[in-house]
Amino acid sequence: MTTKIYLPENEMPTHWYNVIADMPNPPSPYLGPDGKPVPPEAMLAIFPEALVMQEVSTERWIKIPDPVREALTMWRPSPLYRAHRLEKLLNTPAKIYYKNEAVSPAGSHKPNTAVAQAYYNQQAGIKRLSTETGAGQWGCSLALAGQIFGIDVRVYMVKISYEQKPYRRSMMQTWGAEVFASPTDMTESGRAILAAHPDSNGSLGIAISEAVEEAASRTDTNYALGSVLNHVLLHQTIIGLEAKKQLAMVGDYPDMIFAPCGGGSNFGGVAFPFLADNAAGKNVRLVAVEPTSCPTLTKGIYTYDYGDTAGLTPLMKMYTLGHDFMPPGIHAGGLRYHGESALVSQLYHEGLIEAVAVPQLETFAAGVLFAKSEGIIAAPESCHAIAATIREAQNCAKTGEAKTLLFNLSGHGHFDMTSYDRYLQGDLTDFDYPEEAIKESLAHLPKFG
Amino acid sequence: MTTKIYLPENEMPTHWYNVIADMPNPPSPYLGPDGKPVPPEAMLAIFPEALVMQEVSTERWIKIPDPVREALTMWRPSPLYRAHRLEKLLNTPAKIYYKNEAVSPAGSHKPNTAVAQAYYNQQAGIKRLSTETGAGQWGCSLALAGQIFGIDVRVYMVKISYEQKPYRRSMMQTWGAEVFASPTDMTESGRAILAAHPDSNGSLGIAISEAVEEAASRTDTNYALGSVLNHVLLHQTIIGLEAKKQLAMVGDYPDMIFAPCGGGSNFGGVAFPFLADNAAGKNVRLVAVEPTSCPTLTKGIYTYDYGDTAGLTPLMKMYTLGHDFMPPGIHAGGLRYHGESALVSQLYHEGLIEAVAVPQLETFAAGVLFAKSEGIIAAPESCHAIAATIREAQNCAKTGEAKTLLFNLSGHGHFDMTSYDRYLQGDLTDFDYPEEAIKESLAHLPKFG
Repeated sequence: MTTKIYLPENEMPTHWYNVIADMPNPPSPYLGPDGKPVPPEAMLAIFPEALVMQEVSTERWIKIPDPVREALTMWRPSPLYRAHRLEKLLNTPAKIYYKNEAVSPAGSHKPNTAVAQAYYNQQAGIKRLSTETGAGQWGCSLALAGQIFGIDVRVYMVKISYEQKPYRRSMMQTWGAEVFASPTDMTESGRAILAAHPDSNGSLGIAISEAVEEAASRTDTNYALGSVLNHVLLHQTIIGLEAKKQLAMVGDYPDMIFAPCGGGSNFGGVAFPFLADNAAGKNVRLVAVEPTSCPTLTKGIYTYDYGDTAGLTPLMKMYTLGHDFMPPGIHAGGLRYHGESALVSQLYHEGLIEAVAVPQLETFAAGVLFAKSEGIIAAPESCHAIAATIREAQNCAKTGEAKTLLFNLSGHGHFDMTSYDRYLQGDLTDFDYPEEAIKESLAHLPKFG
Repeated sequence: MTTKIYLPENEMPTHWYNVIADMPNPPSPYLGPDGKPVPPEAMLAIFPEALVMQEVSTERWIKIPDPVREALTMWRPSPLYRAHRLEKLLNTPAKIYYKNEAVSPAGSHKPNTAVAQAYYNQQAGIKRLSTETGAGQWGCSLALAGQIFGIDVRVYMVKISYEQKPYRRSMMQTWGAEVFASPTDMTESGRAILAAHPDSNGSLGIAISEAVEEAASRTDTNYALGSVLNHVLLHQTIIGLEAKKQLAMVGDYPDMIFAPCGGGSNFGGVAFPFLADNAAGKNVRLVAVEPTSCPTLTKGIYTYDYGDTAGLTPLMKMYTLGHDFMPPGIHAGGLRYHGESALVSQLYHEGLIEAVAVPQLETFAAGVLFAKSEGIIAAPESCHAIAATIREAQNCAKTGEAKTLLFNLSGHGHFDMTSYDRYLQGDLTDFDYPEEAIKESLAHLPKFG
C-alpha cells in the first residue's frame, strides 16, 4: 500500500501544455486604456520576448529548456501522495490523491514559473528582475530562481508584511535578493504615496506599481509576475502533467480535481492538462476553490477590468469583483484577489470548469483534519482545496461512490502558524458575503470593452 | 545526472541496527545515586518494557513493527540528494551527498523515534505521554506521533521558548498536543521553582523534571525522550540504513560521513550503520560535528555524569562539560547539551569515530552557501554538518582527491529564520571557548564512578 508515488527525474515532462490550443474559442485580447488590443510588442518593455511569445502562443506543446528542467530537478518531479489516512478518517470509499508542491525550497508551487522566468530573462541579457510580494511566497520563489540563474532580484514587499512577517523577508535575503518595504522613496509611485500618506502600510497594488516602474525605466531590468498571465499558467502545467503520469503508474485516473484559485496559476497548473483529456472525450470535473469572502468566479461578473487596484495594467476580460474591491482580511492571502486569470475565466464562462466557494472556518477545520491524518500542515490557500475535497469524499461516503479525487497541495503552512493558532484559539470568524462592497467596486468598472 | 535518489517504500529497512552488537566492549552501565548499576526494571516506571529491553539489547538487528513502518511511510524513505550545485560552486572533485530528513511533517529526523516510542507505549496500554521541549522540534515530533497512535501528548515547553517561539507551539497544538509553559504550577518541581523564582523563564532541566514527575506519578502516563538514550539512537539508524541502500543504487559508497552532534541521535542515526561495515573491514571516517561553544566531545572529559542539569537522571558514562555547564546562547539550540549519548561517547573514546568543532559564524556562512546552491534552507544544527563537509570538500579541491562525502541534513530552518536574519545583519558573533565555565562545571562532577 504505497503512500508516495515518485516519478523518476528522467520522466519529468519535457514540454509545458498550452491550454489555448484546446479552447473552443481564442482568448479575448488584452486591451489598452483606449479599448484597443495591446500589441505583444508593448509588453517587451518589461518582459523578455520569449515570455511575450508564450503569452500569445497557440502551440499545444512548448518545450521546457534544458537548464530550466535541470533547475526544476532541485525538487521536481514533486511526489504524488495517496491520502490513505485521510480516507480512513473520513470512512469514505473515495480514493484521495494529492500532489505535494510544498516540497520546493520556497515551500509552494510558485518556483515552477519563477525558474522559467528567470531563465528566459537571463537569456535575454537581463541583469535584474523587479517584483512585488505580499506575504512573501512569490518573492521567495523569484529570489531562489534569480540565485539559480545569476540575476539580481529586487522585491517590493508590502510594508505591513515586511514588518509583520520577517521570516519570509529573511528567506529572500538568504537567497540573495534585496527586499524593500513598499512604499519606498526609490520610485515616483512610492514617493507620491508617501507624500500623501507618510505612514502608509502599503498594498499589493502600490508594490506592483513600484516594481513595474523600476522595470519600465531601466533597460537592464525586467518585471516578473507570479500568477494571472498565460505564460505563468503555462509553466505551472508541469504539476498536472506529472500528476497524470504518476496516477498512471498506479493505474488510476481522477474523476474530480480540486485546486485553490486566486490568480489562477495553482488551479490552471494542475487542471489544464486534464482539460486536454476532456477535449479528447474524457470527463474529469475540474473544480476551482475560492473563499466565500472573495468569490471572484462564483459571484463576480465576466467583463474587462484592470489586473491591479490602481488601473495601471492592461484590461483583461475576466471574472472580477471590481479592481478596487478590498476583500476581508482572511488568512489565505494568496486568494485575496479581485480578479482571475483570463484563461481560467473564459473556461469557466464557457462551462468547461467548475467553481465552488468555501468559508474560512471550514478551510481551517479541513487543514487541522489533514494535519492530524496526513501529518502535513498545509498553507491556508491549500486548505481550500482540502475542504472541497473533504466535502466530496463525505458525499461519496453517503452515496457509496468510489470516486478518485485529486487535489493540489500547493504549499506548506510553516509561515502561517499564527493563522492556525488564531483558529485553534477560536479567534477566527467567517465573513458575511461582502455584497455591498462588491456592488460598490463593480460600479467602478472601466466603461468600455 | 540525477539529483534525488528515492528508495521505494517497500525497500525501506525492516530492522533497526543495534551498534552495541559491534562495539569492542559492552556499554558502561547506567548508575544510580548510590553508584550501583540501575537495573532495567527501574526504568519501567516511566518507559514501556519494549523500550527498556531495546535499551539493554545486544541483538544486532531489531525488527521494526509493521505499524511503525507504515507510519514512517508518511515521509520515509527520505530522499538522498547529490549536491551537484554545491560541488560546482566549491569547484571540488569531491562527490557530496546528503540525506534529507527535513521532509518529515515535523521538519527534522526526530519523528523517526517519536513514532516508534508512541507505538510501543500504545501497545503497553499507555494513554498519555509527557515530555519536555526547548525550541519545539522534539515536542512537535512527539505530538505528531501521539496523534498517529491515539496517545495524548503533554509537552512541557521551556517558558521563554513558549513565549518567543509560538509557531512550534501552534504546530504541536495543531497535531492535538497540550503544551504548557514550564515551570507550571501542575507539578511539585514546577511549584518549587515558581515559589523561589516567580518570574522564572524556565530551562530544559526544569521541563524534564516536570515531565518525568508527571510520568512517574501516574500509571496511565509514560515519559519520552528525544535523544541520548540507546533506544532513541537505535530508531534513528533507519537514516543510515536507507542512505547505504540509496548510495548503492547509484553505485557509490562514502569515504566520510558528517552529522551534527548534540545528544547524539542525529549522528548515531546516520553513522552507526556504517560502523558495522567498518567492523567488517571497511574504513569510513565518521565525524561528529559540534559547536566550538559547547565542545562536549572535543573538550569534555569521559566520566560518569548526570544527563540533566538538576541531577535527577541516572549517571551515564559519557563525554561531558559538567551537568551544570551553561553553553553560550548559540542559535543551534539542539546542540547546546552538556553531555552526549553514552554510545557515541564510548565509540569516540575507543577511537572508532571522530569529532570536530566548528564556530557559529562558519556554520551560518555554510548554511547560506548551501541555500544559494542547493536551494534548501537548513536548520542551524544541520549547518554544522554542512560546514564540516564544505571544509573537507575544499581540502579535496586542494589535493585533487575525489572523496565521496555524505552528511545528514537533519532538519529545515523554516523556524530559525530569525537566526539567519541576525547572521545576515551581522549581529551574530563567535564565542570564545568557554574555558572557565567548563572548568567550573567540571568541578561539580559527581564523585564516584
